[in-house]
Amino acid sequence: MNEVRVGRVMENMKARGLSQMIISSPSDIFFLTGRLIFPGERLLALYLNQNGSHRIYINNLFTVPEDLGVEKVRFSDSDDCLSLLYGGIDHTAPLGIDRNFPARFLLPLVDRQAASGYVLASDCVGAVRSCKDEEERARMREASRINDASMAEFFAGIRPGITEQTLAESMEKIYRSHGAQGYSFEPLVAFGKNAADGHHAPDDTPLREGDCVLIDVGCRRDGYCSDMTRTFFFRSASARAKQIYETVRSANEAAEAMIKPGVRFCDIDAAARDIIVKAGYGENFTHRLGHSIGLEVHEGEDVSGSNRNTVRPGMTFSIEPGIYLEGEVGVRIEDLVLVTETGCEVLNHYSKDLTIVP
Amino acid sequence: MNEVRVGRVMENMKARGLSQMIISSPSDIFFLTGRLIFPGERLLALYLNQNGSHRIYINNLFTVPEDLGVEKVRFSDSDDCLSLLYGGIDHTAPLGIDRNFPARFLLPLVDRQAASGYVLASDCVGAVRSCKDEEERARMREASRINDASMAEFFAGIRPGITEQTLAESMEKIYRSHGAQGYSFEPLVAFGKNAADGHHAPDDTPLREGDCVLIDVGCRRDGYCSDMTRTFFFRSASARAKQIYETVRSANEAAEAMIKPGVRFCDIDAAARDIIVKAGYGENFTHRLGHSIGLEVHEGEDVSGSNRNTVRPGMTFSIEPGIYLEGEVGVRIEDLVLVTETGCEVLNHYSKDLTIVP
Repeated sequence: MNEVRVGRVMENMKARGLSQMIISSPSDIFFLTGRLIFPGERLLALYLNQNGSHRIYINNLFTVPEDLGVEKVRFSDSDDCLSLLYGGIDHTAPLGIDRNFPARFLLPLVDRQAASGYVLASDCVGAVRSCKDEEERARMREASRINDASMAEFFAGIRPGITEQTLAESMEKIYRSHGAQGYSFEPLVAFGKNAADGHHAPDDTPLREGDCVLIDVGCRRDGYCSDMTRTFFFRSASARAKQIYETVRSANEAAEAMIKPGVRFCDIDAAARDIIVKAGYGENFTHRLGHSIGLEVHEGEDVSGSNRNTVRPGMTFSIEPGIYLEGEVGVRIEDLVLVTETGCEVLNHYSKDLTIVP
Repeated sequence: MNEVRVGRVMENMKARGLSQMIISSPSDIFFLTGRLIFPGERLLALYLNQNGSHRIYINNLFTVPEDLGVEKVRFSDSDDCLSLLYGGIDHTAPLGIDRNFPARFLLPLVDRQAASGYVLASDCVGAVRSCKDEEERARMREASRINDASMAEFFAGIRPGITEQTLAESMEKIYRSHGAQGYSFEPLVAFGKNAADGHHAPDDTPLREGDCVLIDVGCRRDGYCSDMTRTFFFRSASARAKQIYETVRSANEAAEAMIKPGVRFCDIDAAARDIIVKAGYGENFTHRLGHSIGLEVHEGEDVSGSNRNTVRPGMTFSIEPGIYLEGEVGVRIEDLVLVTETGCEVLNHYSKDLTIVP
């Protein structure tokens, strides 16, 4: 285990009065142990205790020959793994619980009174994860560098009649050629009115003149994620589409310009939202401004009107304002930013100039 | 909503003394409403009540214009969606809970005493899902037909020096050309000793003479999943590898031959396992024999030594015995089967003959 990180988690637990907790999110376990395991429906749990009796519960299906610096409790599909986990818990103290711990594991523990109480405690890990250390910052930069370089090739693939699906399918190979180890999420490619549907999946819609081309993509490198959106236009753009584009770009840039330690997330959201509202499209900006990112595409805190926390050095999150006109057009421009000691570093450098593909 | 299916779920709830339950698994919600939504970290919940006051809680981010036959409760990221959900629950009665419902939603409901008790109740849906109706059987056949046809092309791609990664990357396009709508899970391609590692991910390992080539793949069509494994050998196979192959094949065929309504899952597992144990490889068959499959790759009941339930017409599951020699070789042969009124239909028809790629 990474003793520095585990130490910080233990401090956070202590501050919340927790002597013990269960961590089950694969990315949290990776962050602390260096080992990424996706257990599917099986139990995977890292148990931490202030008395130092840490243990990790791993199904035998997952071969982990290396020393993780923590006692391994192994079990098979035919074993009663919940009894094993129950047996290791201090029944007299409250138990911190991972926010993603599923009911199929949690309810049996509660029924057996495994602990004196149950407290959502993922923030104890999340607060450590949210401020990236130097090694992590370098990895975030690298993942976004690959995203920038790949976007140039995705752009080059925009041609008459190509379908969203075909463009999306071309991406994995391009990413890998630039050093990515896979997607951070399935590529979102949307043409024309499809771009106004927040969670449209690429389909066989062909590209037509006047369409916007929204590309929201990210890759993964050494565990860390990138995430960027650019919106182009094919052959022409209506006056309204251009106005929307410039509004979104202004919102994106205004938000990025104000980011520095001590600024509140809600004020960053407001800086972008105000511009869109003033342009008359407030109703068409239907989501939060952004989300934290790192080992997971969505992690930690939102950049939204309801988050009054302030940003701190090392935080990485997206700035992604958008305007969506149902049945017509959708524009979103997204960068990742890294909060520095004095301001912010925008991790994406791909041009945001209004671009009409010839 | 599909009233027949909802009606069966309600009967199952009644039998368990439940007047209300929360369903959150996307595939359960798809099964009942026909609408597939992956909410990520956001709340998505279908609330069923015996009094007919069903509701579905959906974030505004997901555009669902169509009538789902159930009241929609919409909310935004800035809304307190858990209070909305809490407000709709009968606080005086026990509440059925989805097995995957995460602690971040469950614990706040428990803390607020949303119900008089909490009971894992996904089985109420699972029991309905497990026995496929005619429409579902046709879809399961079609997904496996595509898997068979695609396997022939994957096989044709096996050539000297190709890496696991490159072979795996070729698959999506092949699947789509046969009518698949994506993977049911990321393809598992493992050469030589990598095949002995239960959860090896395709990497840049090149193919070498004498390697086994384990291909465990599946696609999705109209929501339903296929899943098949074949193991080939490249240019040569050791006598031991051949013996292992024939042992696994015998185990696979012995299990498939005995499947009919009324047979216990554990006895199917034993039929395959006995053959492998008698051949001296019992310790090297490290997992259950199979898993149920349908809208999800892994759903419902296991085919394992600890499952004493009997199989019923309409059930679909995998039969996938394997023998793994660490550092040397891994062989697995997997088909999907559909239990019929009188026996079983093997959904995969791709050859299981020992095949040495020239």
